[in-house]
Amino acid sequence: SKSFRIVVLSGDGIGPEVVAEAVKVLKVLFPEGSDVELKLEEHIFGGCAIEKLGEPLPKSTLDACLTADAILMGSIGGPKWGVDAKVRPEPGLLALRKALGVYANIRPASFASDSLLSLSPLKEHVTKGVDIIVVRELIGGVYFGARQELGASEAEKDLAWDNMAYSVPEVQRITRVAAKIAMAANPPLPIHSVDKANVLATSRLWRKVVTDTLRDEFPAIALDHIFVDNASMQIVANPRKLNGVVLTENLFGDILSDEASVIPGSLGLLPSASLAGAPPSDVSSATFKPTSGLYEPIHGSAPDIAGQGIANPIGTILSAALLLRYSLGLEKQAALIETAVRKVLDAKSAGGLELRTRDLGGEVRTTEMGDAIAGVV
Amino acid sequence: SKSFRIVVLSGDGIGPEVVAEAVKVLKVLFPEGSDVELKLEEHIFGGCAIEKLGEPLPKSTLDACLTADAILMGSIGGPKWGVDAKVRPEPGLLALRKALGVYANIRPASFASDSLLSLSPLKEHVTKGVDIIVVRELIGGVYFGARQELGASEAEKDLAWDNMAYSVPEVQRITRVAAKIAMAANPPLPIHSVDKANVLATSRLWRKVVTDTLRDEFPAIALDHIFVDNASMQIVANPRKLNGVVLTENLFGDILSDEASVIPGSLGLLPSASLAGAPPSDVSSATFKPTSGLYEPIHGSAPDIAGQGIANPIGTILSAALLLRYSLGLEKQAALIETAVRKVLDAKSAGGLELRTRDLGGEVRTTEMGDAIAGVV
Ligand SMILES: CC(C)[C@H](C(=O)O)[C@@H](O)C(=O)O
Ligand SMILES: CC(C)[C@H](C(=O)O)[C@@H](O)C(=O)O
Repeated sequence: SKSFRIVVLSGDGIGPEVVAEAVKVLKVLFPEGSDVELKLEEHIFGGCAIEKLGEPLPKSTLDACLTADAILMGSIGGPKWGVDAKVRPEPGLLALRKALGVYANIRPASFASDSLLSLSPLKEHVTKGVDIIVVRELIGGVYFGARQELGASEAEKDLAWDNMAYSVPEVQRITRVAAKIAMAANPPLPIHSVDKANVLATSRLWRKVVTDTLRDEFPAIALDHIFVDNASMQIVANPRKLNGVVLTENLFGDILSDEASVIPGSLGLLPSASLAGAPPSDVSSATFKPTSGLYEPIHGSAPDIAGQGIANPIGTILSAALLLRYSLGLEKQAALIETAVRKVLDAKSAGGLELRTRDLGGEVRTTEMGDAIAGVV
Repeated sequence: SKSFRIVVLSGDGIGPEVVAEAVKVLKVLFPEGSDVELKLEEHIFGGCAIEKLGEPLPKSTLDACLTADAILMGSIGGPKWGVDAKVRPEPGLLALRKALGVYANIRPASFASDSLLSLSPLKEHVTKGVDIIVVRELIGGVYFGARQELGASEAEKDLAWDNMAYSVPEVQRITRVAAKIAMAANPPLPIHSVDKANVLATSRLWRKVVTDTLRDEFPAIALDHIFVDNASMQIVANPRKLNGVVLTENLFGDILSDEASVIPGSLGLLPSASLAGAPPSDVSSATFKPTSGLYEPIHGSAPDIAGQGIANPIGTILSAALLLRYSLGLEKQAALIETAVRKVLDAKSAGGLELRTRDLGGEVRTTEMGDAIAGVV
C-alpha cells in the first residue's frame, strides 16, 4: 500500500469552498483503509496568511510544500490587498512557484461536455472541436528578471525597468515537457510555439531552441511558430488552428492562457498543473513524473461571491485529477474523476434540468455539485 | 487655398492594391483645382525596398516622410523575408515609427455597420454595441530597450535578454493623447488602463503616472485599471466592459489590439493612426494636431491573396479618413469618407445583394469596393 502527503492550500475568497469539494471527491476515491492513502495537510497561504502572520507564504507553509508529494491550491487574493498594499498575496504565489521550481504550467482549454458549447461567447461553429493545451514557462522571463522601481536610482529617477531573460536550458526543459504532452497522444499533437521573434532577442532564442530541441529529440512532432499578436487573434477568430499544444514563455502564456480559457464558457471549469523536475530522457516514454506539482483552478478568489456557496468547484476537482495523474502516477483514478465530471455535466434530471452552478447559468450550489460528482466517481 | 504633401508608402503584398483605392477616394474628395490641394508622393518602403535597394527604409523615403504633412501606408512584409532573413522589412517599420516619433497608436475596434455583426466569431449578444478605441504606446517599452542576442557575450553565452523601460514623460504624453480622445466624446469616454502592476516595475510606474496625470489634468474622465491577462479575457468574454479608451504600453497593445480587431469580423475593415507631437496643453481643447502622422490599415500584406484584386480596401480608406482628421484638420471630409463607407456597407443592390469583398463573405473586387465608396463620398 502506498501513502502520499498532499498539502492543501485553500487560500482566500472562494478557495476554501471549492477546495472542500475536491477533497470530498478524493476521500470517496481513497477511503480509509484503501490501498492508496492520501494524507491531506491544510496550510495557511495568501491573504489569510498575511492577516494572521503578516506574510503570504509563511515558512511553515513553504517547508510543508517543499516536502509534500503534491500541493492542491484554491485561490488567493482579494480587494483588501490592492496593488498599493505593502504586503500582497501574489508575491507569495510567485515565491512558492520559484521555490518549488515548477517551471511548467499546463492549462487545457477544451470542453468538458458538448452540452456547454452554448455558454461560450464564441459561436458554436468556431468553438466546436477546440482542444488546446497551453504549456507556459512559469519561473523565467520578465516575471523573475532584475527590475528597478520608479525613482529607485538617483541617476534614473523618473525611470522604471524590467529585464526579460531566457537561457538555453530554461527553454529546452519546457520544450521537453510540451513534447512529452504532445507525444502522449496518438498520433502526437502538433506544437504551436508562440513568440515575438520579429522584435525580441529572447524570442529569437526561444524559437531557435524550441526548433533544435524538437528536431533533435522529438522529430515526430509537427512544429510551427506563431507571433504572439497573431496567436491572440487566432484564439478568437479560429481557435481550432491552435489545436494541440501551445508552447509559450511566461508573460505571453499569462495573457494567452487567460484568453483561451474563455472559449469553454466558464473559468469555473478549468484546472491547471504546475510541474517541476526533468522529464525522463527516455524519449519513447510519454510520461513525465514531476518532482513537485502545484495544482489549482485557473479562476481567482472571486471575492464578489465568496462565502455564498455558489462557486463552481469543477476547476478544482479537475485539478485534483491532474494531481493524481502527474504527481502520484494514478492515471486510472484521474480518469475516473474526469469521467464523473463529464457524466454530471451531461446528465439531465427527471425534470429535464441540467446540473449547473451559477456561472453555468443554473442554481446548483457548490456542495451539491461536489456531491453529484463524488456520487458517480 | 491650402496645400498638403502626403507621402504614400504602398509597400508589399496587397499594399499597392488597397492604397490605390484610398487614393481614388481622396482624388474624388479633392479634385484638381479644389480649395485643398493634396500632393501625393509615392515612395518605396519594406520588402520591395529591400529587393531594389537592399534596405527596407531607404534614406530618400525616410527624408520624404520626415518632411511630409502625413503618411499613408499599405502593408509590408511577406514570405520572402522570414525571421531568419538577414535584412527584413519590420525593422524598417520600427525605425520609421521611431524616427517620426509617432508614440501614439490609435486603433478603433467597432462595427462600421451593424449589417456586419454576423461576421464576428463572437455571438451577437456579446458584440452588439462594442465600441473600443485602443491607444497603444508605440515607441517605448521592450520594443526599443537594450537587448542581447543569444551568444552575444562570452560571459553569458547561452542567454538572451530584452529590457523593458518606461519613463514618466513617456507615460504622461500617451496618457494625454488617450485623454484628448476620451474628451472628444460627450460625455467623456472612460479610460481603461492596462498593466501588469502585480509583477512589473514598469507597470507600477505606468499605473501611477496614468492615475496622477488624469487626476491632475482631466478629472472629468473615469479611470479604471485592469491587468493585461484579465483584459485579454474580457475582450472575448465581455468586450462592452472595455467600451471607451483602452490605454496600454507597446507590447500589451500589440497583443490586445490584434485580439480586439477580431470583434468586428474582418481585419480588412479597420484603420489605424500613429501620431507624434504633444497634445495642446489647453485642456478644454479636445483636438490634437500631431506633428507627424502615419496611417495604415491594421491588416498585413496578405501574400496569399496579393495580386488577385480581391483584398478589402476599407481599412486603408478609413485610414485616409483618419489622416484627414488628425494630420490635416479636415474633419468634415474625414466624416464624409466614414459616412460613405457605412452607406456602401449598409446598401443593398436591386437584387438584394450586399456589397461584400471576399473577407466579408462576398465576391466584390477591390476596385469595385473602391469605386462604390468613391461614388458616394
Ligand atoms: C497572480 C499573478 C501573479 C499570476 C501570474 O501572472 O502568473 C496569475 O495571473 C496567474 O496566471 O497565475
Ligand atoms: C510588424 C511588427 C513589428 C508590428 C509590431 O509588433 O508593432 C506589428 O505587429 C504591428 O502591430 O504594427
